[in-house]
Amino acid sequence: MNKGIIMPDSAVLSLAKDLISRESVTPEDAGCQQMMIEYLEALGFECETMVFDDTTNLWARRGTAKPLFCFAGHTDVVPTGPLADWHTPPFEPTVIDGFLHGRGAADMKGSIAAFMVAVKQFVEQHDDHQGSIAFLITSDEEGPFINGTVKVVEVLEARNEKIDYCIVGEPSSTREVGDIVKNGRRGSLTGDLVIKGIQGHIAYPHLVDNPIHKAGPVIAELSQKVWDNGNEFFPPTSFQISNIQSGTGASNIVPGALTAQFNFRYSTECTAADLVARTHNVLDSQGLDYELNWTYNGVPFITGEGELIDAVKTAIKEVTKFDAELSTSGGTSDGRFIAPTGAQLVELGPINATIHKVNECVKIADLEKLVDMYRLTLTKLLSRDPV
Amino acid sequence: MNKGIIMPDSAVLSLAKDLISRESVTPEDAGCQQMMIEYLEALGFECETMVFDDTTNLWARRGTAKPLFCFAGHTDVVPTGPLADWHTPPFEPTVIDGFLHGRGAADMKGSIAAFMVAVKQFVEQHDDHQGSIAFLITSDEEGPFINGTVKVVEVLEARNEKIDYCIVGEPSSTREVGDIVKNGRRGSLTGDLVIKGIQGHIAYPHLVDNPIHKAGPVIAELSQKVWDNGNEFFPPTSFQISNIQSGTGASNIVPGALTAQFNFRYSTECTAADLVARTHNVLDSQGLDYELNWTYNGVPFITGEGELIDAVKTAIKEVTKFDAELSTSGGTSDGRFIAPTGAQLVELGPINATIHKVNECVKIADLEKLVDMYRLTLTKLLSRDPV
Repeated sequence: MNKGIIMPDSAVLSLAKDLISRESVTPEDAGCQQMMIEYLEALGFECETMVFDDTTNLWARRGTAKPLFCFAGHTDVVPTGPLADWHTPPFEPTVIDGFLHGRGAADMKGSIAAFMVAVKQFVEQHDDHQGSIAFLITSDEEGPFINGTVKVVEVLEARNEKIDYCIVGEPSSTREVGDIVKNGRRGSLTGDLVIKGIQGHIAYPHLVDNPIHKAGPVIAELSQKVWDNGNEFFPPTSFQISNIQSGTGASNIVPGALTAQFNFRYSTECTAADLVARTHNVLDSQGLDYELNWTYNGVPFITGEGELIDAVKTAIKEVTKFDAELSTSGGTSDGRFIAPTGAQLVELGPINATIHKVNECVKIADLEKLVDMYRLTLTKLLSRDPV
Repeated sequence: MNKGIIMPDSAVLSLAKDLISRESVTPEDAGCQQMMIEYLEALGFECETMVFDDTTNLWARRGTAKPLFCFAGHTDVVPTGPLADWHTPPFEPTVIDGFLHGRGAADMKGSIAAFMVAVKQFVEQHDDHQGSIAFLITSDEEGPFINGTVKVVEVLEARNEKIDYCIVGEPSSTREVGDIVKNGRRGSLTGDLVIKGIQGHIAYPHLVDNPIHKAGPVIAELSQKVWDNGNEFFPPTSFQISNIQSGTGASNIVPGALTAQFNFRYSTECTAADLVARTHNVLDSQGLDYELNWTYNGVPFITGEGELIDAVKTAIKEVTKFDAELSTSGGTSDGRFIAPTGAQLVELGPINATIHKVNECVKIADLEKLVDMYRLTLTKLLSRDPV
């Protein structure tokens, strides 16, 4: 204890507090990116704001040479949920027992602050680094992801500006910061199915064609099917029905239609086109009258062993002394829009235990460790004299 | 055309109009039974009003000897539906082109009027008839059938007052009055099923237990099962699922439970206990965690060849020249409460094309034919000098 002495905030804590204090509930940016621009321009970045509809995006780049290393992240946060359940006001960053509390502390204003400090430290030591460094920041990651990363990537692709290495600052860690690095994500594909029948009174079964009865064997076949066996990076492709509804509410009426919604989380052993074709085969082979509409949420991607994984794992081990585990589990992230351009891409960020919940928080010591992990990764990939 | 001459209403038309003009939407009787009491007491009936909760019932009997012939019916009607869709006000009986329009014209104030006139004609010719004649009239047939026929039958059973022959005035006819006589009904049994699972995020399939997936094989097995093959009187027992629901609405959540409602219409080859046991066998053999609640709507009954069928078929043939067809199809009626006491029971009434719809109507000539059919049936069964 340093009684009576007030320690100044560290650089990363100071930046994280600044970002959290801005009420950037998706798709608002609330000035976060403007603060970043001022900070990054001082470090030699060229900053480009791209506004698409309700979304503010930032593309900031230092240097023009290859390889291009990009940090991808988002300034928007999910809504607070019930304010009465928060121990501290969600947009007043507050330190309690070594933890920084506030909405976005872990997802993902803490990681943005950590990468900003890491870059500053790196360029101060390696002003003439190889390649380029970029930030791709959006304000719609938590929303419908229509006007954010996906549109910025389109602009970059159109001018042939290729990202070689990408760290997404999503909170990937579970028990200790750096224990898990996400090196890919499953694909996600949703189907909205309507099975048609003929409605009528239950007392006249020869006049009806019950769509619920038709759904039974379809559900059985689709839910028991082995779509693939996964591979070294991915678990087997999973099929789940999330919603089903049929019936008028009356006990004596056979309904005329049944609706169901299902979702595939799929590995790189399948493509969306495979899954669509194989689903239609099942439905067609049962002679159903049906409609089926598909929503393509994202293709699977994987970053195997290579320079980025090597650099990140080595950096983590230098900071923590343990080996990080690679994983492709969990939900989607904006990485799905960047990886298909050919980038090596991983997600590395703080512990995700409190994200999207009330009393979101991050351990300040973990942010300091992230600064070191990010800086060491940059050093391994871009310094002219790698340590 | 008898230009300028206004013909007085026939007896049956006059009574039917009187009943229709009373707004007896279930469970209201609206004075119908009081009108009947005045009419029947003048014919020598002893009338007993039995009120149970919101329901008014009438038990009227002429004579004390066996056999007891009973006409069963109801004075309540279903709601009108949209008034704007009616060509005539539903409670203002109106004759158009030989048809009497109004709510209840076919279901079943017309039949009540026809039987009242048939009895008057019969007792005027056969004052010293054999046996007894009764009316069992309720005002809750269209409602929850809790305080109507079922309660009156309990009273009769308690005092050992046995009905030997029963005509229910339900509209049994389809194309011509008298073409179909219902001589039985299937049983009806409803099940409310909850299949339990474990809710969770769709991205973590190993942590969920999807109740929709569990329902698939259950639906397939129950809907494809042959429960029986029916018999000379009944079609095979039918199983139909009327309602199914599961899902939170979100596309990325696997729900924790599924609800389904199903109904058996069953023949005399099965019992409700059979069906319950066999359904539980299917569910148990699939290792489900489930809840299942049963509603017993009515047991099947059948009146085979015998005095009542003989009398009714002969009466119809004398009036129409054709042979009536016996049938057990269609929905339930209050006959299900009377038949189990051992009565021979049939349903005979007007054409059912407009019942429960707007612009309900009945052909006046059909009501006159029903008067003749009912009177001839009484004559064959109860006159001391059968024609």
